[in-house]
Amino acid sequence: MKAYKDMSKAELLALKDELEKEYQAFKDRGLKLDMSRGKPSKEQLDLSMGMMDVLHSGAELTCQQGVDCRNYGVLDGIKEAKELLGAISEVDVDKIIIYGNSSLNVMYDTVSRSMTHGVMGNTPWCKLDKVKFLCPVPGYDRHFAITEHFGIEMINIPMTSEGPDMDLVEKYVSEDEAVKGIWCVPKYSNPQGISYSDETVRRFAALKPAAKDFRIYWDNAYSVHHLYDDDQDVVLEILDECEKAGNPDMVYKFTSTSKISFPGSGIAAIATSPANIAEIKKQMTIQTIGHDKVNQLRHVRFFKNLDGVHEHMRKHAAIMRPKFEIVLKTLEDALGGLGIGQWTTPKGGYFISFDSMKGCAKAIVAKAADAGVVMTNAGATFPYGKDPDDSNIRIAPSFPTVDELGIAAQLFVLCVKLVSVEKLLETI
Amino acid sequence: MKAYKDMSKAELLALKDELEKEYQAFKDRGLKLDMSRGKPSKEQLDLSMGMMDVLHSGAELTCQQGVDCRNYGVLDGIKEAKELLGAISEVDVDKIIIYGNSSLNVMYDTVSRSMTHGVMGNTPWCKLDKVKFLCPVPGYDRHFAITEHFGIEMINIPMTSEGPDMDLVEKYVSEDEAVKGIWCVPKYSNPQGISYSDETVRRFAALKPAAKDFRIYWDNAYSVHHLYDDDQDVVLEILDECEKAGNPDMVYKFTSTSKISFPGSGIAAIATSPANIAEIKKQMTIQTIGHDKVNQLRHVRFFKNLDGVHEHMRKHAAIMRPKFEIVLKTLEDALGGLGIGQWTTPKGGYFISFDSMKGCAKAIVAKAADAGVVMTNAGATFPYGKDPDDSNIRIAPSFPTVDELGIAAQLFVLCVKLVSVEKLLETI
Repeated sequence: MKAYKDMSKAELLALKDELEKEYQAFKDRGLKLDMSRGKPSKEQLDLSMGMMDVLHSGAELTCQQGVDCRNYGVLDGIKEAKELLGAISEVDVDKIIIYGNSSLNVMYDTVSRSMTHGVMGNTPWCKLDKVKFLCPVPGYDRHFAITEHFGIEMINIPMTSEGPDMDLVEKYVSEDEAVKGIWCVPKYSNPQGISYSDETVRRFAALKPAAKDFRIYWDNAYSVHHLYDDDQDVVLEILDECEKAGNPDMVYKFTSTSKISFPGSGIAAIATSPANIAEIKKQMTIQTIGHDKVNQLRHVRFFKNLDGVHEHMRKHAAIMRPKFEIVLKTLEDALGGLGIGQWTTPKGGYFISFDSMKGCAKAIVAKAADAGVVMTNAGATFPYGKDPDDSNIRIAPSFPTVDELGIAAQLFVLCVKLVSVEKLLETI
Repeated sequence: MKAYKDMSKAELLALKDELEKEYQAFKDRGLKLDMSRGKPSKEQLDLSMGMMDVLHSGAELTCQQGVDCRNYGVLDGIKEAKELLGAISEVDVDKIIIYGNSSLNVMYDTVSRSMTHGVMGNTPWCKLDKVKFLCPVPGYDRHFAITEHFGIEMINIPMTSEGPDMDLVEKYVSEDEAVKGIWCVPKYSNPQGISYSDETVRRFAALKPAAKDFRIYWDNAYSVHHLYDDDQDVVLEILDECEKAGNPDMVYKFTSTSKISFPGSGIAAIATSPANIAEIKKQMTIQTIGHDKVNQLRHVRFFKNLDGVHEHMRKHAAIMRPKFEIVLKTLEDALGGLGIGQWTTPKGGYFISFDSMKGCAKAIVAKAADAGVVMTNAGATFPYGKDPDDSNIRIAPSFPTVDELGIAAQLFVLCVKLVSVEKLLETI
């Protein structure tokens, strides 16, 4: 393979002609495929259908504490649900609150509460002139949407292969009292599939924030979402590390079963220090009488324990693995050595991250869309939707079938080639 | 019966002796009964157990719109759930959003959003020096807790037999721009069981608020919760009336199935104008990907339609009716003509409201508690927990059995008599 940058103008023009013909052929097929969102496929949803049967009209719906789960009561979740999600989150039951169906909602509420009531007696953020969040990039668009919604200034922090650039994180957090938080997806990050190294976690735990109300928003979205049985990432438990480092209250750890059982019909949780738990519960008792305990019980009866979850996730992995692999193989086969793109090879999670040549991502995504393949909007992985290099594209292989993905990935690499050639021709 | 106020000191002292003996006898029984919260009884919960079977592992979980309810998507609720809760709320599907398990949570979020983002382009409440809510009293403690939590000043508005004192409401709303809302339970109100008259509803709809962002918080908690088949209250539909009066955006109407299916595992909704709906959805799309559609589908498959709901509510009524009746009969038999208390005789809802002589409520509730019967805290039905007359007591007859209620009501009237005698002796 000859790298594109080493090609002459004539070679590029010839290549462009050829690629345009291929592209037109794709267009003529009238494809309609979607690689835009991290949505489980139908086969994955089918894995949890047994959950529909564990509670039936003859079932006993009383939880361990002796409470009838059908009635009011139990603000912070039934004990057995705390045990299950505590195991997934690697914390004890005294460090977890069970919520409703969405961890995103828990994160939103956490920011919202900080705006209106402040964090542990500190000034409510809505009374401050400026509040800032650090945003490792590329990252999750819905995180950035929350902070943007509340008018919080977002600062890009580049990701490395070990997690966020900790030199920068340490500098901002220790020097600027307006920095109140950082969005993290520590394991199989969205979209790169990077897991934070032990050193990264330890440096997080040892932060010396200028702001007393600085908190790490640790979105443990893919904690048990491995692709392989024998090659899995392990991330140090952040609450433990923070406690050891004398920062016991510095982390909110979020999790949910959205991509374990059913997205939208799962259960979510926050894991944090007992002091934070106590503060959160004071507000929660005003907001609700309690979350859906019947659904909590349904999850516990179906999964039983962490072993049950792992067993279940192996079935998810069997469905996801070939999807990741066909995309990665297509990228490697078509783009390897061309010098027009780089990508990650995650061992878990829901995404592959692709970086095109600078200034090409928007055009690639637009070209794919024109030929019937929807990708996540270019820029979406950055605060305010602005990728300064216009190069990052998130690939979400979960929803289409393997066959569809094969086709979609072929079209994608073709668009990458075509846009790259056009870009190079501009400057030659 | 001789009214207590007409008794001589000697008569009162003799009566006191007798009542104290009776009270001691009750104490010796070691009762443990709870008339404090509006919690459905086990028999009521059993009515909905069929809902556990309508969705099973072989069920088709695709909604009318063709969306797989197990997956992400559909921010504002599936169409069939909008139809069902729309029917309960008496509004069309374009005027309703389906939420999670708790209408209280929807109300909290509505106030919270107004604090941080304002209402329809008006200044966020957190940026104002003063925000006030009108609070018809007696009312629902959890409403008052929300406004207190956000530092909103609460103004008592006396209830009449037709709803809140509308002269006062009109005066405050039209004269004071800081008045941004009013808490209403328009049908079978909490705790009095009063339903607003047509004139009251029309005067609400015709309000001319000083504040452009004034909203009526219309908590339609007991819309289908009748006690009798042939004697039911009907409340004018407020959204229609507001539209007719040229105030289409002035109302948020809340509802839930908490006391229809399962408290904590039901579905909730807000009904409001399309303009409000559009504004709310802009925020909702940041807060969540969507609520629990599987549970929405479960409710629709079980209840089918409004007729199904009414049929189901007749079964609830059959359980609730004798409970209300034994309490009311006990009050009438024991206290009728004594001039030491007044009470309401609701035709639906969850509560009976009792007004003792001034300055007696706290003592009555304490005496009942001492003998093993828990009532709602005296004062709870007023903002800040402060009943200026110390006379209102909420009686919640739903949870205990009829037999238990008979005993609890006997103890209650005894406590009323004893405390009233003590009060009269103080001033004689």
